Amino acid sequence: MAEGRLMSEQSKQPAIILVRPQLGENIGKAARAMLNFGLTDMRLVAPRDGWPNPAAGPAASGADIVLENARVFDTVEEAVADLSHVYASTVRDRDMPKPVVTPREAAQQMHAVIGKGQTTGILFGPERSGLTNDDVVLADTILTVPVNPGFGSLNLAQAVILTAYEFHHLADGTPAYQPSHPEGTASKDELLGLMEHLEGELDKRGFFRSEDRRATMRRTLRNLIQNAGFSRQEVFTLRGVVKSLARPPRDRQDD
Amino acid sequence: MAEGRLMSEQSKQPAIILVRPQLGENIGKAARAMLNFGLTDMRLVAPRDGWPNPAAGPAASGADIVLENARVFDTVEEAVADLSHVYASTVRDRDMPKPVVTPREAAQQMHAVIGKGQTTGILFGPERSGLTNDDVVLADTILTVPVNPGFGSLNLAQAVILTAYEFHHLADGTPAYQPSHPEGTASKDELLGLMEHLEGELDKRGFFRSEDRRATMRRTLRNLIQNAGFSRQEVFTLRGVVKSLARPPRDRQDD
Repeated sequence: MAEGRLMSEQSKQPAIILVRPQLGENIGKAARAMLNFGLTDMRLVAPRDGWPNPAAGPAASGADIVLENARVFDTVEEAVADLSHVYASTVRDRDMPKPVVTPREAAQQMHAVIGKGQTTGILFGPERSGLTNDDVVLADTILTVPVNPGFGSLNLAQAVILTAYEFHHLADGTPAYQPSHPEGTASKDELLGLMEHLEGELDKRGFFRSEDRRATMRRTLRNLIQNAGFSRQEVFTLRGVVKSLARPPRDRQDD
Repeated sequence: MAEGRLMSEQSKQPAIILVRPQLGENIGKAARAMLNFGLTDMRLVAPRDGWPNPAAGPAASGADIVLENARVFDTVEEAVADLSHVYASTVRDRDMPKPVVTPREAAQQMHAVIGKGQTTGILFGPERSGLTNDDVVLADTILTVPVNPGFGSLNLAQAVILTAYEFHHLADGTPAYQPSHPEGTASKDELLGLMEHLEGELDKRGFFRSEDRRATMRRTLRNLIQNAGFSRQEVFTLRGVVKSLARPPRDRQDD
């Protein structure tokens, strides 16, 4: 039952296909990268050191469900057999007649493929050498992360995490910007109370010097308070601060 | 001279500020993550095991320039002193009156800050515990990567790479989609040549059976060839394939 649900969820996300991965540790790191962004369909093609690999678990940092459900295949052909649209993740230009897309474009395409009820997956090559050209031929589209042209050194888990992140981002509902005070800022009444309180105490001390200067300085202070976006609680705190500053220091011990 | 140029480049990108980092290896991985996306201004606040740290170099996989130019500070206050807009990277909700943004929104804001000639940076906390609330207070804005709510386990270098990736992405000119054949597809003339060649050979063999069927099937084949987006070279290859198939197998040895 739980397995059935997992399978049905997996058809709605790209399979992450590690082709001839070398180190178990990197398989674990890739699993962790995947699960951070909700991906669980890991496929391993001819892992160098066999499977399961005891080095994978510790590196997965708790993403055990991904490793436990990983499927092993002998060939890339078998690993992609049930998929409709396959990407090949490469770092260098292959001079192959295939479209090349960024992870962001791939994420959009993959959501569109899945939206049509089809399935998709991404091939990642071995740590050192990457995918062979014969692996790449099996893909529809090449996926390349645009990196610093002077230093392109993405490892396997990093390539996986950037791709998974982009896929997750498109479906994620987190607002790009959440304001400081989700409960809203102070009312005009509360702000005016603070302004008048402050102005009153400053007036008593001759801060404004002349009526002319008073008008200008009052606007400066009112703009400053107005624009700060204070919450009700913050206005309350500032009223206490003004009150405290208006007392002579020796009062402190009496509080 | 080279150092002067580096400093001037650095003011156009966010400083990556690792606060009380524990393992040298993670400092190296963060440096590698940064340089992949062109960031070089690393700042270390009170690294636990001192600085330089021999474990950092190997983990940086060649991003030595970042480590060599890293600046060490005793406090977060000193590390952010020259910056105008500071982000605090956190994974959990801090219930603090600060805006919370995604890495993508932060990237846009940072480019805007830099565009105004101001400077920016991002605080990343120690591996285990993350930033303290007193660290976070020094920031303008909280930066949180939206992850799988059931499994949020981003490590330091992963948080750095996602943030650096988003900053780089905004300024990077790589097209989201590059077509299969940058040189363009075959001309209509070349496609028509292939169609007629194929139809001629099929006609000789009675493939179309009736005139009625011929019209339908011809449209099917012509659409199929038309829509495939073949290059000139691919059309040439396919002409050779049709020619070869049209020969009896015994001819093969004569070639």
